[in-house]
Amino acid sequence: MESFDFGIVGLGVMGRNLLLNMADHQFAVAGLDLDAAKANSLESEADTGQRVKGTTAPEEFVKLIKRPRAIMLLVPAGNPVDAAIETLLPYLEEGDIVIDGGNTYFPDTDRRVASLAEKKIHFFGMGISGGEKGARFGPSMMPGGDKKAYERLRPIFEAIAAKVDGEPCVAYLGNGSAGNYVKMVHNGIEYGIMQLIAETYDLLKRGYAFDDETLQQTFEEWNQGELQSFLIEITGEVLKKYDDETGQRLINLISDRARAKGTGKWTSQNAMDLQVPIPSIDVAVNMRDISIYKEERIQAAEQLTWDYTVGSIDANEKSALQEKVKNAFYFAMITIYAQGLAQLHVASKTYDYGLNLEEVAKIWRGGCIIRALCLEDFRQAYKRTASLPNILLDQEIGRKLVDRQADLRAIVKEAVDKGIPVPAFMSSLAYFDAYRSATLPTNLIQAQRDYFGAHLYERTDKPGTFHTQWD
Amino acid sequence: MESFDFGIVGLGVMGRNLLLNMADHQFAVAGLDLDAAKANSLESEADTGQRVKGTTAPEEFVKLIKRPRAIMLLVPAGNPVDAAIETLLPYLEEGDIVIDGGNTYFPDTDRRVASLAEKKIHFFGMGISGGEKGARFGPSMMPGGDKKAYERLRPIFEAIAAKVDGEPCVAYLGNGSAGNYVKMVHNGIEYGIMQLIAETYDLLKRGYAFDDETLQQTFEEWNQGELQSFLIEITGEVLKKYDDETGQRLINLISDRARAKGTGKWTSQNAMDLQVPIPSIDVAVNMRDISIYKEERIQAAEQLTWDYTVGSIDANEKSALQEKVKNAFYFAMITIYAQGLAQLHVASKTYDYGLNLEEVAKIWRGGCIIRALCLEDFRQAYKRTASLPNILLDQEIGRKLVDRQADLRAIVKEAVDKGIPVPAFMSSLAYFDAYRSATLPTNLIQAQRDYFGAHLYERTDKPGTFHTQWD
Repeated sequence: MESFDFGIVGLGVMGRNLLLNMADHQFAVAGLDLDAAKANSLESEADTGQRVKGTTAPEEFVKLIKRPRAIMLLVPAGNPVDAAIETLLPYLEEGDIVIDGGNTYFPDTDRRVASLAEKKIHFFGMGISGGEKGARFGPSMMPGGDKKAYERLRPIFEAIAAKVDGEPCVAYLGNGSAGNYVKMVHNGIEYGIMQLIAETYDLLKRGYAFDDETLQQTFEEWNQGELQSFLIEITGEVLKKYDDETGQRLINLISDRARAKGTGKWTSQNAMDLQVPIPSIDVAVNMRDISIYKEERIQAAEQLTWDYTVGSIDANEKSALQEKVKNAFYFAMITIYAQGLAQLHVASKTYDYGLNLEEVAKIWRGGCIIRALCLEDFRQAYKRTASLPNILLDQEIGRKLVDRQADLRAIVKEAVDKGIPVPAFMSSLAYFDAYRSATLPTNLIQAQRDYFGAHLYERTDKPGTFHTQWD
Repeated sequence: MESFDFGIVGLGVMGRNLLLNMADHQFAVAGLDLDAAKANSLESEADTGQRVKGTTAPEEFVKLIKRPRAIMLLVPAGNPVDAAIETLLPYLEEGDIVIDGGNTYFPDTDRRVASLAEKKIHFFGMGISGGEKGARFGPSMMPGGDKKAYERLRPIFEAIAAKVDGEPCVAYLGNGSAGNYVKMVHNGIEYGIMQLIAETYDLLKRGYAFDDETLQQTFEEWNQGELQSFLIEITGEVLKKYDDETGQRLINLISDRARAKGTGKWTSQNAMDLQVPIPSIDVAVNMRDISIYKEERIQAAEQLTWDYTVGSIDANEKSALQEKVKNAFYFAMITIYAQGLAQLHVASKTYDYGLNLEEVAKIWRGGCIIRALCLEDFRQAYKRTASLPNILLDQEIGRKLVDRQADLRAIVKEAVDKGIPVPAFMSSLAYFDAYRSATLPTNLIQAQRDYFGAHLYERTDKPGTFHTQWD
């Protein structure tokens, strides 16, 4: 008894894969699942010499684990997390650690941290990114909770995490719900970049009549250069896939009604609470939503017409276009990360997380869905200036955008002419142009608010608040 | 006793003005305020022959009013509303009606409706728009609550409301929090249009070097044509105002840090919950937020440069430009209303409000901040098709946009070239182009989600959900 290093509750794909990942690194791991089939089949999946044990009995499960115990829940977010905690609680002891590895809405984690702290049990919220494969062979992990308690978890998490240049993609992030919050914003950025890729695909396909083969090659090539990233990589692979049944490219058979699990929406809604503008993530949420209005869109397509004929372009023009679009994509992608990281900067102060954004950039370099070559640039930027409020203010990153802005402007204008919706590109440019405006026309908004609502305004030439009788 | 027609709790500017407005229409109105100065001074403000009475005593106040009593609260949203209800409750009787006239977050109203229904007291949430002046001489009012109980309120509200062509700008809107919800979206649209005006001002001033006099005249002229609206009108007046002290135009002395009370934010956050895209309102919220990052913007202005020199334009070019911008503004303004009204369409189903959007358009034509000539067009569109999910699908409105889209596209491209942020114009165009896309590239997003998260996808050629092993 009490000889296992770690416990996992919930032996679905994610829990099971994380458990086997730990076993690969010579940790002894116990698994709990109320489904006997899942619990009993575990041992046969482990390799010789690995110590794993599945059970359906909570008490037995808890008592298998070395104290202070480290137990991770891989159950759906919401009530199942509370239910799992209730199940374990009678057997837990002071100093034990429970980690929620799901996509939990961060205020729920703060509530659980406080409730378990009364029993001197540590509760961690940990974002895990990388999907099933990441869980099995190396995810990016974003833990938040008690800093001292993290030392009990560190060796195991560092062993199983993805590695980039030998550095593990996991780090203690901060207090309370810091880990869930960072993962939420990770997903918001993911929404933004996926929307940007979709717009790029749409512009080249509908706006320039690129054939499927050229589209596929374009993304595959881009993944060799500065756009190198997981999402660009899988786009190349998705576009390559043929449907077994019809022999057509699978992408052309997939419905355009997009689904969402809510983490992008939470990111946008919370950013508005914090007064952090993240317009490119907002539009990504919007565009998934507009996709569900299929019948209305079909009717609108007939009524709201715009005359545009796609002209043919020769090989030289095509190559120049690809270069321009690549630069525009790079620009917009950087601004999406900038928006998400700026949100973390503010959230860290608001919620007292004590985030180290250099560490965040570091652990996002591998394992997770938004991993990309550019993350190393961000890490270096935060190394230069730990308190950087926005990576656009870093001289090196800023220079890369300044150099590429003409291409982004050109591409947005092309899309406007063609009638192709590119809200992520547009919002990236508008964000950039607003951010670099020392003076914005919001003085007029303040005047209007004072006019009709007596909401007062401030002046540039003296302190205080003022009201004017305007009419 | 029991001889007054109506009671008002909270004799601040809004409550006082509504009370005097009712008195002007020969209603006998009692006012309650715990501040004796406010309560006692009321009678001296009424004209001869008018019956008004102020008191600081809740019991006396309630007993002054005819049964079933109609009492409106004009106190700040939040706890003060609950406190006011608690104060009145001991003296209220079955069938009495309490109306909250503040900018209350709609779920709070639903809670209060349910709680007071247990005591057989009707609770109404009513949005009131028009500011202090509207309250005094004719606001637009958006009541929601029990339909039968509304008959007790109707004569008073119809008398004091703004009138357009003899029709009052008030109507029973629907169950529960319908009135607060409609007012919330009204304010979201208000945010969007104010942002659009600010961008127009910025583009003409920074992008084309319009002088203040020409800017002022431009808005004043626009208010004579199809853009005629309260917000365009007051923009002309704001730009005309000089500062007494410095002799400068006041607008040029007002700080560009914009404030917000939260109703725009609620509109955006709730639209995301309902999966209704309202990108132009989202960016309006965003731009107020970005305005507060003044120090960062000043630094960014130095580092993130874009070479653009404003050229001079002659009188003919200026006149053509004004016409183009006017058309672009009209287009964008219509899409902002379209987004808000589409949100109401979905909210009505989600929350079972039973909204009649023809009535909503009708009562927004006068009294409120977003009143505009175009509201009559929307009203006619809903008269043609009551169930219209989006006014862009109305043939007449759609045609007006199709005719003006070339000018909007031209203006967006000009702003892109000049480096002036026009996110409201851009999001309006992107919304239009996405909405009129029978097929969106969101199929790629579904493929990616299935690739990394096994989230499944639907196909266009057969029903069901599918998963592919992509790599």
